[in-house]
Amino acid sequence: MTPAHAQARTGADGADQAVRAAHAAFLTARTHSREERAAWLDAIADALESHRTELVEIAGRESHLPDGRLGGELTRTAFQLRLLGEEARRGEFLGATVDHADADWGMGPRPDLRRMNVPLGVVGVFGASNFPFAFSVIGGDSASALAAGCAVVHKLHEAHAELAARTAQIVADALTAAGAPAGLFGAVTGREAAEALVDHPLVKAVGFTGSEAGGRALFDRAVSRPEPIPFYGELGSLNPVVVTEAAWAERGEEILAGWMGSLTMGVGQFCTKPGLLLLPEAGAEAAARVLPGLAAEADLGAGMLTEAIRDGFVVNREAVAASDGVSVLVEGNEENPPAPGVLSVRAAELGEDSEVVRREMFGPAAVLITYADAEELERVLGLLGGQLTGTLHSADGEDTARVVQLLQDRCGRVLRGGWPTGVTVSYAQQHGGPYPAATQHATSVGTAAIGRWLRPVAFQDMEDAQLPPELQEANPLGIARRVDGEWVAAQ
Amino acid sequence: MTPAHAQARTGADGADQAVRAAHAAFLTARTHSREERAAWLDAIADALESHRTELVEIAGRESHLPDGRLGGELTRTAFQLRLLGEEARRGEFLGATVDHADADWGMGPRPDLRRMNVPLGVVGVFGASNFPFAFSVIGGDSASALAAGCAVVHKLHEAHAELAARTAQIVADALTAAGAPAGLFGAVTGREAAEALVDHPLVKAVGFTGSEAGGRALFDRAVSRPEPIPFYGELGSLNPVVVTEAAWAERGEEILAGWMGSLTMGVGQFCTKPGLLLLPEAGAEAAARVLPGLAAEADLGAGMLTEAIRDGFVVNREAVAASDGVSVLVEGNEENPPAPGVLSVRAAELGEDSEVVRREMFGPAAVLITYADAEELERVLGLLGGQLTGTLHSADGEDTARVVQLLQDRCGRVLRGGWPTGVTVSYAQQHGGPYPAATQHATSVGTAAIGRWLRPVAFQDMEDAQLPPELQEANPLGIARRVDGEWVAAQ
Repeated sequence: MTPAHAQARTGADGADQAVRAAHAAFLTARTHSREERAAWLDAIADALESHRTELVEIAGRESHLPDGRLGGELTRTAFQLRLLGEEARRGEFLGATVDHADADWGMGPRPDLRRMNVPLGVVGVFGASNFPFAFSVIGGDSASALAAGCAVVHKLHEAHAELAARTAQIVADALTAAGAPAGLFGAVTGREAAEALVDHPLVKAVGFTGSEAGGRALFDRAVSRPEPIPFYGELGSLNPVVVTEAAWAERGEEILAGWMGSLTMGVGQFCTKPGLLLLPEAGAEAAARVLPGLAAEADLGAGMLTEAIRDGFVVNREAVAASDGVSVLVEGNEENPPAPGVLSVRAAELGEDSEVVRREMFGPAAVLITYADAEELERVLGLLGGQLTGTLHSADGEDTARVVQLLQDRCGRVLRGGWPTGVTVSYAQQHGGPYPAATQHATSVGTAAIGRWLRPVAFQDMEDAQLPPELQEANPLGIARRVDGEWVAAQ
Repeated sequence: MTPAHAQARTGADGADQAVRAAHAAFLTARTHSREERAAWLDAIADALESHRTELVEIAGRESHLPDGRLGGELTRTAFQLRLLGEEARRGEFLGATVDHADADWGMGPRPDLRRMNVPLGVVGVFGASNFPFAFSVIGGDSASALAAGCAVVHKLHEAHAELAARTAQIVADALTAAGAPAGLFGAVTGREAAEALVDHPLVKAVGFTGSEAGGRALFDRAVSRPEPIPFYGELGSLNPVVVTEAAWAERGEEILAGWMGSLTMGVGQFCTKPGLLLLPEAGAEAAARVLPGLAAEADLGAGMLTEAIRDGFVVNREAVAASDGVSVLVEGNEENPPAPGVLSVRAAELGEDSEVVRREMFGPAAVLITYADAEELERVLGLLGGQLTGTLHSADGEDTARVVQLLQDRCGRVLRGGWPTGVTVSYAQQHGGPYPAATQHATSVGTAAIGRWLRPVAFQDMEDAQLPPELQEANPLGIARRVDGEWVAAQ
C-alpha cells in the first residue's frame, strides 16, 4: 500500500482537484450552522488527542524535537482548535452591525442597512517546519480558516512529511466522521502544487509561516494574480530585548540566564527567538564572563530541524559574524547536538546596513549589543525593521515611555519582563507586526486570527426572512451586535 | 500672487517634503487625545460649511454638476467628518481587548495580555473626479484616516484642480486654527508626486478611488515596494440589478423609470451606477417601448466631468456595443448636454468573455439583459466579477435565496428594491467588494472605513501606568472593551 504522504505528492493537477473539492465542500459547509462547524473543530481536537502517542512518535523522529515539547505543542494545538470553535459559536468575528432606517439621519434619510462578515471560500495554508503541530497541518492558520467558515487546502511541509500526511488524514477522517462535507480540508505537497495553489482562481487567501525569501516570492505571486488575494505571511523577526541600566543593576545575571534559556528553546528555531539583547555597557564585562558558562550548560536536544535549515543557519550566522565590529563571544556550533553561539558588538560600531539589525539567524545563535547611553539605544532600535515582538527589562516605576514607543512602532507585541518565546493563544494575542515580521496587519495566533478569512457584506432593505439569522431583527441566535451605533451584548 | 493650486503642483521633491512634514505632525498628533483629534474633524466640517457658497461655485464651474447636487454632497462630507469624529471619541475602532493573567488557562499559564489598534502613520489618499467633495480632498478616505489618528498627504485630482487646492487650503487652515500640528494634512499634485507618494518609505497605506487601469498600476506599485503597504483601491463596478418575473408583473414600468433615474444620476458617473438590468423576457417588449421615452425625458445637466472621461466613455460604450448579440435600444450621446443610452442583449447570446459582463461604461449608458429562465439568470450572474453592489427587485415573500446568495458572493452590498446610487454614511455601510470593485476586503464609506488605517499591538505584562489609557485596568476613558472574552459596554 502506498503511504499517505506519497499519495499526497501532487502536482498542479492534484492542487486543482483539491481546490475544486474544497470549493464544493465550502458551498455545502456554509449551509451548516456555526454551532455545527464549531463541533467539527472539536472533533479534530479530539482526534489529535486520541492519536497523541503515534503523532508525537512520528514528529520526534522527523524533527529531532523532544517528546515533552511535542506533547505540549499537541496540547496547545487541540486547545487552539477548541478555542477557535468556541469563538465561532460566539459569532464575535461576524462584526454584526444593524442600522435601522432613519428618516432623520443627518445627511438625509437612511435605509435599513445590516452588515456582517462572511467567509472568503477556499484558503491555501502553508505549514511551517518548526512547529510540526501548532503552525502546521491543523495549526492556527487552518483552524482559524475553518472557524471562519472557509475550506482549507494545506501545503504539507517536507521537513515533517510523514507527520504532515498522517495528520492530514486524521483531520480529514475526523471531519468526515463529524458530518463535514468531503474535501473541506485537503492537502497537497511539492513546489508545483504550492504555486498552483497560490495561483488558483478559487483560492481567495493564503496563510504562510516561513522564511522572508520564500514568503516574499509567494506574496509577490498572490498580489500579481488577475484577482490579487490577501497573503498573510509571517516571515521573520529579530525580537530585540532591551535591558535598562536599572534592570541590569537589579538582576543582571538573572536576565542573562533567562535570555540563554529563551534563545535556545526549540534549538533557536522559534520565530520569536530573542535574537538581539541590548545591554548597557556596564553589563558587558559580566556578560562576557557569564554567557560562555550558560551556553555550555544549555541542553539543545538532538539537532536542528532539517539539513536545509542548518545550512541556512550557518550562512546567516557567518554573514552576521562578518559585519563590522562583530566579535564572537561564545563559539557555538550546529552539530548534533548543537551548542548555542553568542556574537557581540558595540552599538556605536553598528552601521545602518549592518547584518546584525536585518538578518535573522534561524537557529541557536544571537547577538549581544552593548549601548553607552539612551541615544545609542534609540539609534539601534531605529535601525530595526518590523518585528513580531520587542521586550523591555526595566525596574518598577522607571520612566520608559520613549523605549516603549520605539518598540511599539516596530513590533506586534511588546513585553515587559519575561521572554517572547511561548506565545499564548487568547483573545488579545497579536502575533504579527510591520513587514517583514508579517505581510499584512493581522495576527496568525489567537482568536483574532479568524478575521483574516472574512469579508464584509451589507444588506440594504432586505426582507427579514431573507437575512442571515445573525442579522434578523429578533437576533434569534443571540449574538453580540452593534445596533444603531451602540453595542448590544450577546444574550 | 501664485494661485494655491499652482503652488501645489509638486514633483517628487514636493511629495517628499509633504510626507516628512506629515510624519512629523503624526508623531505630535498621536500625543493628543482622541477627544482632541475628534475636535479637529469637527473644525474641518465647520470650515467647509462656512465656505459653502465659494466651494460650490468653484465645483460647479469645474465639474458641470448642478449646485443642488454639489451642495448636498458638501453637506454629506461635513456630516461624514463629524460622524467619524464621533467614532474616534467612542474608540470603537480600537478593538480594545484585555486578557488578564490566568494560571489555569487551558494550554498553560497565560500572561496579562492587552491589545488595541494604533494608527499606521502617514497615509496617501488619491481623490476621485466624480465626487469633488465626498471622495476627494477631505472625503471618506482622508476623514477616516484622520479619525484613525493618521496624517494624510492627498493627491489632488486634476479634474477639479482649483476646488481641490482651495479645499486643501481650507482644511489645512482649519486644522491649524484648531490646534493640530502643521503638516497633518498635506497636498500634492501631478503624476510624479503621485508615484513618489506611493513609493515613500514613510507612507504606510494608500486610499484610492478611480479607474481599474490606474488603480491596478498603483496597487502593483504599492505591493512591489521593499516594504509592501496596503492599497485600498475602489476600482470599478457594473452593479447588476435583477428583476424577477413577479416583480416585473407587479411594477415593471415603475422599475424601468427608477432604473433610468438611477443610471443618469451624476451623468452616469457614479461608481454605483446600475450598469446592468437583468429583466425577464416577458418584459423585453415593454422595455423597448418605454425606455426611449424615459431617456428622452431625463435631464443630465450640462456635460460630463472631463474630456478624458468623455473620451473613455465613448471607447468603452463602443466596445460593449460591438460585443456579440448586443444591439442599441436607445442611442444616447456624450455631448453637452448628454443623453442616456441603453444597449440590450439576450442572456443566451452573452459569451463568457463578453465586454457586457466586464467593461464599465463610466458615463450615461447601461445594458438591458433579458433572460428566459432562472438558469440563464444564474449563468449571467456567474459571469460577473466583484461588484460594489447588487440589487434585487422581487415580490414580497418570493423565494429568492439562490439569487441573493449569488449576489452576496460577488457584491459588497446587496439591496432589495431601490437603487444602488445614494450611499449612506453609517455604521453598517459597506462600500467595497471582491476585486475589481475593491483591492482589499474593506469599506471606503461609513465608520468601518477607519479600520483600514490601523494595526494591532499587544502589550504583555506591562505596568499599568505604561499602558495607553484605553488598556489600563481602570478603563479611565470608559470605552467598550472585550475583557477575558466578554464584551464590557462603554461607560
